[in-house]
Amino acid sequence: MLINRMSVLWTAKVLGLGAVALSLAVELLVRLLRRLGPSGTLNEVLFFPSEVACVEHLFSSLSAGSCVCPLRHGIETSLSRLLRHIMSASSSLDLCVFAFSNANLCRAVLTLHAKGVTVRVLTDKDYAIITGSQIGVLRKAGICARCDSSCVHMHHKFALVDGRLLLTGSLNWTLTAVQSNTENVLVTEEPDLVRPFVEEFHRLWESNDVAMDLWSGDQKSDTRSSDGGRKHAC
Amino acid sequence: MLINRMSVLWTAKVLGLGAVALSLAVELLVRLLRRLGPSGTLNEVLFFPSEVACVEHLFSSLSAGSCVCPLRHGIETSLSRLLRHIMSASSSLDLCVFAFSNANLCRAVLTLHAKGVTVRVLTDKDYAIITGSQIGVLRKAGICARCDSSCVHMHHKFALVDGRLLLTGSLNWTLTAVQSNTENVLVTEEPDLVRPFVEEFHRLWESNDVAMDLWSGDQKSDTRSSDGGRKHAC
Repeated sequence: MLINRMSVLWTAKVLGLGAVALSLAVELLVRLLRRLGPSGTLNEVLFFPSEVACVEHLFSSLSAGSCVCPLRHGIETSLSRLLRHIMSASSSLDLCVFAFSNANLCRAVLTLHAKGVTVRVLTDKDYAIITGSQIGVLRKAGICARCDSSCVHMHHKFALVDGRLLLTGSLNWTLTAVQSNTENVLVTEEPDLVRPFVEEFHRLWESNDVAMDLWSGDQKSDTRSSDGGRKHAC
Repeated sequence: MLINRMSVLWTAKVLGLGAVALSLAVELLVRLLRRLGPSGTLNEVLFFPSEVACVEHLFSSLSAGSCVCPLRHGIETSLSRLLRHIMSASSSLDLCVFAFSNANLCRAVLTLHAKGVTVRVLTDKDYAIITGSQIGVLRKAGICARCDSSCVHMHHKFALVDGRLLLTGSLNWTLTAVQSNTENVLVTEEPDLVRPFVEEFHRLWESNDVAMDLWSGDQKSDTRSSDGGRKHAC
């Protein structure tokens, strides 16, 4: 009888200790896997120049094989990865980019805007108006674009997708950068890296709270509009 | 006697289970803290323009307060943080930078080289020879510098400290970038981000295994040497 009571007592202690140890281990394991595992925090680096390949299937209902353009089809490139990350936005895209003249990247931004995603663009006052800049195209589509006039150059090249995914690096959003230069784009969801960029975008956006109206109707080539930079709310 | 034997048996079982649970929990906790904790993986973002302040104490035995130059003293800036990260190298510094004309950053690299740290510099063939470029200064000090001639521009701006710490972003290593532009440098030890840059540096270094001798004795201003790019081993 005494042996039975002892046995029950020790069994209860063992089970109690085991339960505590197990819950602690599971909790730590779950946190570890959530942060480090393949389905956890996204960390990726894209290098350029990107292979030249068709990206039509990313914008339309066409399958990769059904397009008849002369470019290569069905391959994943640094550009297609970048476009996929940008187009994964479901609520917001905050873009802070020095030079923006790449037509495919512009198309991705226009597609998001058409889907109702809130797009904000901060760019450099000088490069916004050079030949081939897509900033005027974005503005004509109704996208809010502002220029940072407080510095020599607004030289950032980063995008924030839904405030959770950061794309940043050396890559300006130009055709030369994508197809010809040696460049990088770092892609991360790491909160300690994303948070400072969210705050930096907010700071720059708020400190440039009027848009310089450098685009008057159709965009001009490497010239400023005749009103010399009239401001309007954006 | 039987009770004592049972008691010893159960005690051994409890201790065994406890030891296993404890070692598992400690192992997971250590790994978690190493990767996520404040003393774990470094993740930091530096924004520019940097405040202008004296950085002499980083290079000499002077304390921050004993310098008599007219700049502000005793404050931590984005530039001083960047210099500290670079100068934390104990074995190697691999530098892959489009434009390099900043005297303080050059001094940091020369200091490392003088301490015996292995320094390798990859740069852009056109920007290596413009006015104020420090590439010639580095080469004259005996540092191995190569130019990437395979692309329109070698536009990266990253550094690898001891192959473990990555510094990358929009910032060229110029005075304008540091003091005037809106720029960023992302600092991380995250292996999933560092590893691709280590591989990219290796790839670029090996694919440009001769140094373009664009510097003939004293550096020229915005001109190429008369030998038109003679090659030598580096």
